[in-house]
Amino acid sequence: MSRSRTGRDFVNVKDLEDEEKHGSGDTVWLRGRLHSIRVKGGSCFLVVRQDSFHTVQAVFFKDKENPELSQKMIKYLKSLTEESIIDIEGILETADVKSCSIQNVEVKIQRIHSVTKAASILPFLVEDASRSEAEVDASQDTDRPFPRLGQELRLDNRWMDLRAPANNAIMRIQSMVCQLFRESLYSQGFIEIHTPKLIAGESESGAGVFTTDYFGQTACLAQSPQLFKQMAISSDLTRVFEIGPVFRAENSNTRRHLCEFTGLDLEMIISDHYMETLEVIHEMFKHIFTGLESKMSKELAVIREQYESEPVTFTEEPCVLHWPEAMEILKENDFDIGDGTGDLTGAMETTLGKVVKEKYGTDFFMLDKYPMEIRPFYTMPDPEDPKFSNSYDIFIRGQEICSGAQRCHDPELLTEILEQKGIESGEALDAYVRSFRDGIFPHAGAGIGLERVVFLYLGLDNVRKASMFPRDPNRCAP
Amino acid sequence: MSRSRTGRDFVNVKDLEDEEKHGSGDTVWLRGRLHSIRVKGGSCFLVVRQDSFHTVQAVFFKDKENPELSQKMIKYLKSLTEESIIDIEGILETADVKSCSIQNVEVKIQRIHSVTKAASILPFLVEDASRSEAEVDASQDTDRPFPRLGQELRLDNRWMDLRAPANNAIMRIQSMVCQLFRESLYSQGFIEIHTPKLIAGESESGAGVFTTDYFGQTACLAQSPQLFKQMAISSDLTRVFEIGPVFRAENSNTRRHLCEFTGLDLEMIISDHYMETLEVIHEMFKHIFTGLESKMSKELAVIREQYESEPVTFTEEPCVLHWPEAMEILKENDFDIGDGTGDLTGAMETTLGKVVKEKYGTDFFMLDKYPMEIRPFYTMPDPEDPKFSNSYDIFIRGQEICSGAQRCHDPELLTEILEQKGIESGEALDAYVRSFRDGIFPHAGAGIGLERVVFLYLGLDNVRKASMFPRDPNRCAP
Repeated sequence: MSRSRTGRDFVNVKDLEDEEKHGSGDTVWLRGRLHSIRVKGGSCFLVVRQDSFHTVQAVFFKDKENPELSQKMIKYLKSLTEESIIDIEGILETADVKSCSIQNVEVKIQRIHSVTKAASILPFLVEDASRSEAEVDASQDTDRPFPRLGQELRLDNRWMDLRAPANNAIMRIQSMVCQLFRESLYSQGFIEIHTPKLIAGESESGAGVFTTDYFGQTACLAQSPQLFKQMAISSDLTRVFEIGPVFRAENSNTRRHLCEFTGLDLEMIISDHYMETLEVIHEMFKHIFTGLESKMSKELAVIREQYESEPVTFTEEPCVLHWPEAMEILKENDFDIGDGTGDLTGAMETTLGKVVKEKYGTDFFMLDKYPMEIRPFYTMPDPEDPKFSNSYDIFIRGQEICSGAQRCHDPELLTEILEQKGIESGEALDAYVRSFRDGIFPHAGAGIGLERVVFLYLGLDNVRKASMFPRDPNRCAP
Repeated sequence: MSRSRTGRDFVNVKDLEDEEKHGSGDTVWLRGRLHSIRVKGGSCFLVVRQDSFHTVQAVFFKDKENPELSQKMIKYLKSLTEESIIDIEGILETADVKSCSIQNVEVKIQRIHSVTKAASILPFLVEDASRSEAEVDASQDTDRPFPRLGQELRLDNRWMDLRAPANNAIMRIQSMVCQLFRESLYSQGFIEIHTPKLIAGESESGAGVFTTDYFGQTACLAQSPQLFKQMAISSDLTRVFEIGPVFRAENSNTRRHLCEFTGLDLEMIISDHYMETLEVIHEMFKHIFTGLESKMSKELAVIREQYESEPVTFTEEPCVLHWPEAMEILKENDFDIGDGTGDLTGAMETTLGKVVKEKYGTDFFMLDKYPMEIRPFYTMPDPEDPKFSNSYDIFIRGQEICSGAQRCHDPELLTEILEQKGIESGEALDAYVRSFRDGIFPHAGAGIGLERVVFLYLGLDNVRKASMFPRDPNRCAP
């Protein structure tokens, strides 16, 4: 907690076990959420929570010497509502409390004050939001089955849902993924950019785009920072990244699509080969995976208690599967791959993930050389076989988290591809091509979905759990 | 440059003066932009540029022993266009070159190859985009006046404009401001959040908002992450920040307004007083200002060569002006302040900046206790005088870069204020108020405009210079 300006220094619950900071008999000021309260005759047991993770017990017992005052206190305590914010002045005492994160001390209440009062009827209890599916399942045949909270109820009251330790920790993991992403890229010579989300005209693809009136003209919401991060490369910035929202007006109601998510984008000039970019990306993901396990071990433990998962395994050097090898694997697994230039289905990707895990012992791999037909216009065709391309997807356990490519930096070839794909030039695309005509380094890059990384790394069942306030075709609030 | 996969390791121009890395007589591979080329008889002088900042001379002289080959080479060199990307294999030789950033060596060209060719007619020359106004002014009465590049021409070809060293460095400064902002807040216990930019319904204010069709319902683009960062506080995240785009559909054609800019937002719980937040913000800005001067001294020097400015001065402890004092200053300076509860004009702010500089010796100060009438509904009224509020703006040289407040955390009072201000509840606002009813810590925060900070820190004349691809009522491309 912050430095107090009135001389009351509020304690951090997590420090209460630290004997260098606090000792039995100390008077402490404690501010936190009233997690729960139990009054039994003249005994009151409160659990106070901070940061969703840390809990300590606070107690009050009727003072026989002073029955009237005690009675008043108990009456006040009974009036408190769970999830209210309370201030307690109390004395630390040795204890043995099983149900709190602080187990060896508790706070004997001297004074208590409700700072803000929560409503007496809450949408649901944090406790109920904190149980694993297995726990809820197991309780169903008992006398007191636990309620099963549906996703919609949780998301309608997302602030309550996020007070559950595991859900709260997921947000902290999300924050750390961004921190580690940037840390790695800074150390590899990148700078951060911010590109506009409002783009004049209809989008190049025309489909899946939100549009708005922009002072009398039509503008659309960027489906990715693609055109702009490439124009940044043309601006003599050699390695750039951006973290920002991307918008997809696609009516996909699946467990892994969102209509607005956070894109982690990067773009860099290359010397000889786009493999340079895959090496940068591999370093970056390694940094994220090892960083999460080492820096966020407490949060991961809390999450894995509610949502079981194992750490993602990965190889020291990039594990790169090539398209022909992937086709072989799929054939061996009885998939109909046609002429081998069609897109992969979810089932195919999952199978690839399983086979790669068996064969190479890694959950994390790259698939290179996608057919040109199924990749966007800005992709560089494979110079040796233009039916294929210098492009790649990256997977965790057979599910895509990243898509990238060498970009077509030749404005003539780019114009040809645009024509082949039947894409009409608009104001945005026109500027993009012009930025190439003014000279551009060969370059490659990638786009990563933050919520995808978090959801797949943690083995969650739904990407919505990794988004603070998710947006899907049926939800645009809160 | 990157590790080469073909054995050619491209050199960094900036390292060529480093005697530990390179010496006269070394063969080097150099990739860069052809900044300029001058052919005079049998002598060719090229300037090769990297990262917009670093330049080296490359030379070719006719070989009398081998006139035919020399002739071919000169013909090829003449065919090269400025701003093309070229590869040179050459030998480092001691030299004395005044016009390049590398002055003590040059590259004797053995082989040269154009990687990508820039058009022979460019929208303008990088050289012309790189001059100060003073230099252009001074040239007007000479035989060869320099062209004056208008803002629209520059922005229409922003990638060319950003190749000018000062403009390129401004983007690097922008990146560093974000890095320092986060560094300071991480060290003060904040985590990063990402909140949705698409919000169901019309905006609370109704005005100045972009709207879109969201699967059959109306959604608007967030004018700030205000409601969401406060709901994050209700989600038991105690200190949060967000860096993301904010959208303002305001038809303001001024030198300091943008229709889309990058918000640096923060929100935190407070113990006793919102001054805690001002202290956090002050620390953060100090970290940014000192970090820029120490880590970006080269970039700042390059920028200040084209756009003159002095470092921003600031005080060790926050310099907080209170509203009544500000009113006194304005009265003394012959402003009509009415009853002292109206908003400040730009001229008033500038005057305050000047007086504060004289009185307290700082360019950077906070103005606290704004009248409630002119602040948004989520502001906490001053408990001692509800005509005023616990809210503040922060200024650099009398120009606003940040606005913040303690928030009204009491749902009853909040509802009253909404009624007073005549704001109708919608889906977003309804959820926001409910998140308070479920219990919330007292909290305060602020919103900062990234481009404002960069533009005012550098004393630029227009905020557009601090935005990579600016958006205003007349511009939504590139």
